[in-house]
Amino acid sequence: MQSPLINELIEAFKLLPTIGPKSAQRMAYYLLQNNPNGGKRLAEAIVEAIDKVGHCDQCRNFSETDVCRICASPARKRDQLCIVETPTDVVAIEQSGIYQGLYFVLMGHLSPIDGVGPEDLGLPLLEERLKDGEVSELILATNPTVEGEATAHYIHQMATSMQVPVTRLAQGIPLGGELEYIDSGTLSQAFAGRKAV
Amino acid sequence: MQSPLINELIEAFKLLPTIGPKSAQRMAYYLLQNNPNGGKRLAEAIVEAIDKVGHCDQCRNFSETDVCRICASPARKRDQLCIVETPTDVVAIEQSGIYQGLYFVLMGHLSPIDGVGPEDLGLPLLEERLKDGEVSELILATNPTVEGEATAHYIHQMATSMQVPVTRLAQGIPLGGELEYIDSGTLSQAFAGRKAV
Repeated sequence: MQSPLINELIEAFKLLPTIGPKSAQRMAYYLLQNNPNGGKRLAEAIVEAIDKVGHCDQCRNFSETDVCRICASPARKRDQLCIVETPTDVVAIEQSGIYQGLYFVLMGHLSPIDGVGPEDLGLPLLEERLKDGEVSELILATNPTVEGEATAHYIHQMATSMQVPVTRLAQGIPLGGELEYIDSGTLSQAFAGRKAV
Repeated sequence: MQSPLINELIEAFKLLPTIGPKSAQRMAYYLLQNNPNGGKRLAEAIVEAIDKVGHCDQCRNFSETDVCRICASPARKRDQLCIVETPTDVVAIEQSGIYQGLYFVLMGHLSPIDGVGPEDLGLPLLEERLKDGEVSELILATNPTVEGEATAHYIHQMATSMQVPVTRLAQGIPLGGELEYIDSGTLSQAFAGRKAV
């Protein structure tokens, strides 16, 4: 008995990650009842971003310019290249403030089952970049999952064949983690990688 | 260092209820990376709903037609009128399937502090409706909050002065509720309203 337009709005909100029917209904009625201007702003922001945000020619990250702000910044070290799977990984690393080099965003990981091969991850572009000789350290920061590890292995071999030194983010116990609740795989890595103090 | 358009999209998502910075970021990147068509659909649904959904002339509920589907339905009992605060209350009652009468949606509750008076809740319209003499039972289903009770009291007086019988939703222990965890106010109501079995 609900208005078809409200139903469609609820269905559309359900497309968003983690949003179920109850949350979608709440959002739809909230916009209609309390914040129509906010709704217009959201709709415009979605269309603008989807229409105008493309990929950086150099690092493949999302960018509304041909070359993204990080790649274009003269303040970044151009001899370090950090390989990540997604744009949100870049956001996380940037928030830590620990890294001043450049990125290369795969926009996924190797996954033969889903038909994702090296070309889909822009690895030919990465190969060209490594040939330039500007990169003196390739930092692998793919996720510690099976697919992430396989992707890292592939890129490691490529870089080694071109004499580019490769490093990998340290694996071990996360800060604030409690031993009791840490999975055995992480614990094994932490033991294997233990250091003299 | 994020694209300004992506930043604006994240800010816009944060306008939605219960959505914080992390969820907003996740939604923004999800739409860009995995579901741009879904994003366009969402944007369109928002604009369509905000532009075209108005209020029913009879019950004040959201409707894209002058008279909403419930008010226009010949299947509904026209002598029962249920007073609720918001359109989502109508959705909840409709889902229960227990009620076949009509609604009147206040779109809020009396709140002198926020400057919400009887006119803002459409009470003159309700008064006209009661004068018609078609309504033989007015069911008060406002929220059991201070404002909801005050609003119910006001409407009760209005209806009584016009000889329209008024009922109120039963208050007591909710189905599946455990006595141990029920607040003392509800428990008092349940005791006061106890029935012979």
